[in-house]
Amino acid sequence: MSDTLQPIAVSIGDPAGIGPEVLAKAWMRRREEGLQPFFAIGDPRSIAIVWDGPLRKIETPADAMGCFDEALPIMEVEDAGEIIPGQPNMPGARCAIASLEIAVGLARSGAASAIVTGPVSKAELYAIGFTHSGQTEFVAERCGVSPANVAMMLAGPSLRTVCITTHVPLAKVPDLLTVDLVTARVRVTARGLQRDFGIESPRIALAGFNPHAGEGGALGREELDILVPAVEQLREEGIDIVGPLAGDTMFHPRARALYDAALCTYHDQALIPLKTLHFDEGVNMTLGLPIVRVAPDHGTAFGIAGQDKAEPGATIAAIRMAGEAAARRAQAA
Amino acid sequence: MSDTLQPIAVSIGDPAGIGPEVLAKAWMRRREEGLQPFFAIGDPRSIAIVWDGPLRKIETPADAMGCFDEALPIMEVEDAGEIIPGQPNMPGARCAIASLEIAVGLARSGAASAIVTGPVSKAELYAIGFTHSGQTEFVAERCGVSPANVAMMLAGPSLRTVCITTHVPLAKVPDLLTVDLVTARVRVTARGLQRDFGIESPRIALAGFNPHAGEGGALGREELDILVPAVEQLREEGIDIVGPLAGDTMFHPRARALYDAALCTYHDQALIPLKTLHFDEGVNMTLGLPIVRVAPDHGTAFGIAGQDKAEPGATIAAIRMAGEAAARRAQAA
Repeated sequence: MSDTLQPIAVSIGDPAGIGPEVLAKAWMRRREEGLQPFFAIGDPRSIAIVWDGPLRKIETPADAMGCFDEALPIMEVEDAGEIIPGQPNMPGARCAIASLEIAVGLARSGAASAIVTGPVSKAELYAIGFTHSGQTEFVAERCGVSPANVAMMLAGPSLRTVCITTHVPLAKVPDLLTVDLVTARVRVTARGLQRDFGIESPRIALAGFNPHAGEGGALGREELDILVPAVEQLREEGIDIVGPLAGDTMFHPRARALYDAALCTYHDQALIPLKTLHFDEGVNMTLGLPIVRVAPDHGTAFGIAGQDKAEPGATIAAIRMAGEAAARRAQAA
Repeated sequence: MSDTLQPIAVSIGDPAGIGPEVLAKAWMRRREEGLQPFFAIGDPRSIAIVWDGPLRKIETPADAMGCFDEALPIMEVEDAGEIIPGQPNMPGARCAIASLEIAVGLARSGAASAIVTGPVSKAELYAIGFTHSGQTEFVAERCGVSPANVAMMLAGPSLRTVCITTHVPLAKVPDLLTVDLVTARVRVTARGLQRDFGIESPRIALAGFNPHAGEGGALGREELDILVPAVEQLREEGIDIVGPLAGDTMFHPRARALYDAALCTYHDQALIPLKTLHFDEGVNMTLGLPIVRVAPDHGTAFGIAGQDKAEPGATIAAIRMAGEAAARRAQAA
C-alpha cells in the first residue's frame, strides 16, 4: 500500500448507535491490524462519552497524517445535540447525514482516499426528511451515478455476494428482475472486481431465483425468461459467468472456490450465506462509484450501544478493504 | 441405544445414482461410526458393480442382525434391468420405487425400526407415472398422513431448518403462506423435536419472508398479515417461538445457539444456510409420520456415479439420526 495515499474519511454514523464505539476500537487496533490512516467525521462528544482514549480535532484530512499514530483524528461537524447511547434523535440524524456529505465531498475532491460509512438509523433519517432509501443511494446521487449503475457487494473473508434487487418486498422481485437490470449489475460487479480487487478476469456465478433454479421451468420461469438470456448476453460480451445455479448449493466451500462473486436475485439470497459465514466481519462495498465507499455490514445496534459490547471486526475489515481499493485505484491512475 | 431395536431399512434409491456407492461406504464405516445395524433394499447388482465388498442377500429384516458385522445385508427387489452408473432408466426408477414401498411397509409393520431413503431421479419417476412430487409425499400417503401435517426438516451438526413451503415457484409462496399452514408446520416441528430428538421444550425461531422481516410493513406485509398472527396463536398454545426474525441475521453461530429449529418460509431460506454450513453431512428428516424417515440431503449425482467420488457423510448421518430417533420412540412406547 502506498504511503502517499490520503487518509480514509470515516463518517461516524448515528451518534447514539455503536458507530462511535467500533471506530474507537478500530483505531486502538490500528497497529496490529496494519490499518491505513483514517479520521472520523462527526461530533467528538459521541466518541468521548463511550471511550476515554485520545481524540484529536483536525481541520483538514492532511492533519490526520501527523497525529494518527497518537490519537484518533476527528473532523468536527454540527452539534449532534443531546447524545444518549441507544436513544437516537433528530439532531443526531442531522449530524450523521452532515458527516456523510462531508466524507463524500472530501473523497470526490481527492483530499480523502476513500470513505467508510458508519451505521445510521433509517427511521431517524426519514424523520428529518431524508428522501433516499439508504446511504448507498445518497452517495451514488452525490457522485452523479444512477442507482441502476451501482451494485451493493457484501464481502467476507471467503465470500463476496452482490444483490441484484435490494430493499424491496420479496413478492415484487419477479417484476423488478429484468435482463437489463441483471446485466447492468453483473457488468458493474465485473468492473469493480477488476478495479478494486485486482482480479483481472473475474469469475461470476449467478444464482437462480426459484428452488433448484426453477428445474427447467417446473418450479418457476424467471430463470428461463430472464436469467438465462442475461447470461447469454453477458457471455457474448466476454464476461466469465455461469448460472443460473441453484441457490442452495452454491455457497459451500468447494462451490465458493469456483467464483469471485455470486450475483444474487434478492436481498436474503445474498445476505443469508454472507452473514451465516461472516457475521462479525462482513462489509458492504458500493461498486460503480467514482470514489471508494465501504461500510461495516451491521446496523446501529441501539440495543447494545454504550455498553462496550460492540465488535469492531467489520469496521476494521471495511477500513482495510477501503485502503486496499484506494491503493489499487491510485496505482492504476 | 437399545440392542433390541429392529434394523434400519435403507432403500438404495436410483440404481444408476450414487445411492449404492454411499451406502456401501457407510457400511464400511459402521464400526468407527458406531452405526445401528441396517440393511439395503434394492437390486444387489447396483451395489456389486461399484463395490467389491461383501454383500449378503437376506429374506427378512431379522436376518440382517446375524450378518451385519460381516457383510452388507440386502433385501432383493425386482430386477433393475441394465444398470450403468450415471445413466438412469425406467426399470431403475421402478426398482427405486419398489424399494421405497417395501421399506415403508417394513417400518409400518415394525419389522424395521426406521427407514433411510436413498436419492431418486424425479424426472425418471415422473416418466414411469409416479404422481407424487417426491419421496416425502409418497411416504406420507403410504402412512396415511396429509402432506400438510408433515414437515421437511434439514439437519446438520449445528443447525436444523424446516421448510414451510417447499418445491414451488418462489413467486407463489406469498399465496401459499397462511396462518393455518405456518401453525401446522410449527406444531409438527415442535412435536418432532420432542419425540425424535428428546428436546423437552423445543425453542422455535420463525424467519420472516421479506428483507429485514418486512421492517414493520415497509418492505412487505407477509410478516404483519400472516407470520405475526401465527406466532401469537402458537404462543397461546404454549409453544416457545420467536419471530418473525430477519432471515439474514438468524443463522450465525450466536443466533443458532438460541433455537432448536428455524422455521423458514421458502425452500432456499431453509436450504441456503444448511448447505452453506453442512453440505456434506446434511440430512432430511420427515417429521409428523408414524414411522421414522430420514434421507441424505443430496441427489443422485449422476455426474459422478460409479467413479468412487461420492461422500458417504450424509448417509452415515442419516442412518445415525434414524437410529437415535427410533431408539427414542422405542423408549417412549
